[in-house]
Amino acid sequence: CISQDIDHILETQSALAVDLGGTNLRVAIVSMKGKIVKKYSQSNPKTYEERIDLILKMCKEAFIDAVHLNCRVLGVGVSTGGRVNPQDGVVLHSTKLIQEWSSVDIRTPISNALHLPVWVDNDGNCAALAERKFGHGKGVENFVTIITGTGIGGGIVQHNELIHGSTFCAAELGHIMVSLDGPECMCGSRGCIEAYASGIALQREAKRLNDEDQLFTEGMALKKEEPVSAVHLINAARLGNPKADAVLRTAGTALGVGIVNILHMVNPAMVILSGVLASFYENPVRQIINQRALSSARDIQVMSSELEEPALLGAASMVLDYATRRTY
Amino acid sequence: CISQDIDHILETQSALAVDLGGTNLRVAIVSMKGKIVKKYSQSNPKTYEERIDLILKMCKEAFIDAVHLNCRVLGVGVSTGGRVNPQDGVVLHSTKLIQEWSSVDIRTPISNALHLPVWVDNDGNCAALAERKFGHGKGVENFVTIITGTGIGGGIVQHNELIHGSTFCAAELGHIMVSLDGPECMCGSRGCIEAYASGIALQREAKRLNDEDQLFTEGMALKKEEPVSAVHLINAARLGNPKADAVLRTAGTALGVGIVNILHMVNPAMVILSGVLASFYENPVRQIINQRALSSARDIQVMSSELEEPALLGAASMVLDYATRRTY
Ligand SMILES: [Ca+2]
Ligand SMILES: [Ca+2]
Ligand SMILES: [Zn+2]
Ligand SMILES: [Zn+2]
Repeated sequence: CISQDIDHILETQSALAVDLGGTNLRVAIVSMKGKIVKKYSQSNPKTYEERIDLILKMCKEAFIDAVHLNCRVLGVGVSTGGRVNPQDGVVLHSTKLIQEWSSVDIRTPISNALHLPVWVDNDGNCAALAERKFGHGKGVENFVTIITGTGIGGGIVQHNELIHGSTFCAAELGHIMVSLDGPECMCGSRGCIEAYASGIALQREAKRLNDEDQLFTEGMALKKEEPVSAVHLINAARLGNPKADAVLRTAGTALGVGIVNILHMVNPAMVILSGVLASFYENPVRQIINQRALSSARDIQVMSSELEEPALLGAASMVLDYATRRTY
Repeated sequence: CISQDIDHILETQSALAVDLGGTNLRVAIVSMKGKIVKKYSQSNPKTYEERIDLILKMCKEAFIDAVHLNCRVLGVGVSTGGRVNPQDGVVLHSTKLIQEWSSVDIRTPISNALHLPVWVDNDGNCAALAERKFGHGKGVENFVTIITGTGIGGGIVQHNELIHGSTFCAAELGHIMVSLDGPECMCGSRGCIEAYASGIALQREAKRLNDEDQLFTEGMALKKEEPVSAVHLINAARLGNPKADAVLRTAGTALGVGIVNILHMVNPAMVILSGVLASFYENPVRQIINQRALSSARDIQVMSSELEEPALLGAASMVLDYATRRTY
């Protein structure tokens, strides 16, 4: 009985975090301090049925492990691609990367299976929540996170809370347009920063240069059969390839101008760059802010995220911050 | 004594509103219902000293008139060009249009002279407040006002309150950039919607066409000595001048793309166009939203303001809304 009491005292308040991406479905046990205690990963199934079944199976497994690891699970947080109504715990509309994932109530099945409260938001917003609780955004009243990975997403925190907008479509930061024409975007428009500066956009340009025999640069390892990517473009530019350099300059300018637009609209105190291309874009973005922002909006910190797992940590943070107040 | 009581009952709760523009300094007595009871206008003096003196003189005169008109003045609201710290009642930085108007405490001198509480905000924000209390924005939780006049300004209302940002520089909507290059803007950058679609931008293009002998169109009244303006450009386009039409199309596209950027960032339920060019831009903006906004952000009302005096009404609304709670 005494040992049980000690066990109870030693329990770590924790969350189950679920990350639904275009490729993988991941679950983690996350402690109150932001430590990822255990992590599970599977391919994200292509159908609604299989996906929901796998989410429940992985969550149940994680829950059992959590008990053995002395973690008290306060709830489940879900980060997903697409547009989310966090009040209802529903995915309204998914991106093309996750099929059969529109008008889906995620809260109810998880809550029924695990008897735990469930929070849901999109990956960009979760990344911002992760920064607010565990990253550079701690204690910063107004900040913006912008994630440059395969696509571009993000979240806006104003007065310490996310902006969701009137139809849960705020902070669609990848689709800020910086050109009246410009390259075609997956969204159907043109000139979006995602179409200039995302991993997919850079890969498109790398392929174009490669097809024109302009990508290969002296000193570069590039096998004939290897699929080209943003990495090759960055390497080529570093080795002095002027065409690759021009593409990356335009990408940095487009992202920078998009971020200046954010500054002129919501005037945050900090912009946190996240995702695989973050550190690459940090300096170009600072330069463009100095060149093109109003002097009164220039006084802003631009930083690269130091978080390993923003989506999982953000999903967990909803549980860890809201479980006691039961705010959905 | 009975008649005094009746007088008191018949008193109208009112505000003094001050509007500091590039050309005029205006003061008005505004009733709780948004009726402009009396209005005063002078040229806005060029120096700080003369300007402050004139503000105090006009406010005192209006205050005496208000008493005679049975208006009980609850406070003074000031709308001014430039960037404002509304908490301190200070103009931080003015536009070029108002000289000697940076780091100016407006609240203290007015408050000392009239013994009334004083609220201050910039003209774009005041226009949004006017819509919130008296216009299309009544009861709308999230909306944006964009004013297309000589320049372009605006205000963003989120959760029924203005967004001011971390350095009081939010909602600088004229300086949303929609081109990586594009026409030079007064702010020092390029491609801002103000540089495409403001009255000054259209006048610049009208002059350019006129200098190239391309403005005059069959059926148009245009005297040799007359200064050309946006009006001539609009007339020429209506009479079938293809060059004038192309300029206006680009302006409408730029404004529309700028507004789509607003939708993708803060996702308001309504956009209210205000200023002299509002009705001209209403349809082009709707078209661009349909073409270029994410489907989930398209479901938005675009309306033209019906308010005659947004700056004065917005300045008054701060008094009328905040006088009882004394929120600065
Ligand atoms: Ca987002
Ligand atoms: Ca403004
Ligand atoms: Zn797009
Ligand atoms: Zn500008």
